[in-house]
Amino acid sequence: MQRKTICGVDVASYVIRMEEFHGYRSPGMLIGGVMIENGTTRLGPTPYLNVVCETVVCLPDAVQLLTPCTFGNGFMQVLDWGKFALTVYDRDRLDGVRVWLNPDGLNGYPLISDWFRRTGAIREKPPFEDLAAEVLAAGSNLISSRRVRLPRSLKDKNPVPTGFCPECSESYPLRQGPSCLACQGHVYYEMQEGSL
Amino acid sequence: MQRKTICGVDVASYVIRMEEFHGYRSPGMLIGGVMIENGTTRLGPTPYLNVVCETVVCLPDAVQLLTPCTFGNGFMQVLDWGKFALTVYDRDRLDGVRVWLNPDGLNGYPLISDWFRRTGAIREKPPFEDLAAEVLAAGSNLISSRRVRLPRSLKDKNPVPTGFCPECSESYPLRQGPSCLACQGHVYYEMQEGSL
Repeated sequence: MQRKTICGVDVASYVIRMEEFHGYRSPGMLIGGVMIENGTTRLGPTPYLNVVCETVVCLPDAVQLLTPCTFGNGFMQVLDWGKFALTVYDRDRLDGVRVWLNPDGLNGYPLISDWFRRTGAIREKPPFEDLAAEVLAAGSNLISSRRVRLPRSLKDKNPVPTGFCPECSESYPLRQGPSCLACQGHVYYEMQEGSL
Repeated sequence: MQRKTICGVDVASYVIRMEEFHGYRSPGMLIGGVMIENGTTRLGPTPYLNVVCETVVCLPDAVQLLTPCTFGNGFMQVLDWGKFALTVYDRDRLDGVRVWLNPDGLNGYPLISDWFRRTGAIREKPPFEDLAAEVLAAGSNLISSRRVRLPRSLKDKNPVPTGFCPECSESYPLRQGPSCLACQGHVYYEMQEGSL
């Protein structure tokens, strides 16, 4: 029988929250939910849950909606590795479970297989409902998991000494050098002159 | 008179959503809300809003709650620069507004000043309500902004060719080399043997 909840949340509610937060109904966030449920169940209850996402695409938003870990509270870290995988771990005990989408598990699930293998090219997509039904029927068949240990928590707990940049006067972490990264030339923007 | 809304959201509702999502009432997310409101107002309405946060701390969660831009949908980018600043921009026109907390604007706001200057050391914090009242009274006095242009959208729109790693069999972006980053040695975890 098709599952009705993911991480204790009613699937229909999760899909609505997905649209509100993420902007659209994302197959990756649905599979992400299955991965998070699998990992956290295997890890067991902990008040010290942290998550590492190994891709910037979709998966971080599943973590942010289904766990207490967000980007801004520091309990979710994201690596731009392009791997559809995540690790849930206890930041106190430093043990965790890494969960990943297993390509071998996609046989028999043609819509998921097609979704996962596409390289981002725009082509006709199946209706979300059809893909979702496949995901919910497949559940844990899609994924593999393994117990892991982290050498240290990825969240830096030490205070970061800050000061004011002598060039732009803004506050920055002193470990970056005598001026902030922007004033060292790492800018992503150009000033519009005469438009303060 | 003290403001009652931030980015069109009732302040009391925003604080509740902050606790639910971020886990606690964050002065940084309140100031972040003022910054986002200032930047988006100056930028003007656009269906193509993107945001760059220049710190990983708190500010990204303000963006995710108050704009359609999230980490997982790719419309919010985060730089680990340790600067309490963000840029809202139109990803189509590539013009934007950079907004930052201006240390010179903190005079006359002792609680905000103390919050901003602390280096993360644990010490007695003022009640959130007192700090929040100062932030809401200060509003745009706390920040500076400037029009900027981006040379290009930070979100990569091109398809990323992927393949299967010959070592771990997982999918990864081929541009990273003949094997995935984890199999190249960039691991943050140790395998627990005998625990597949």
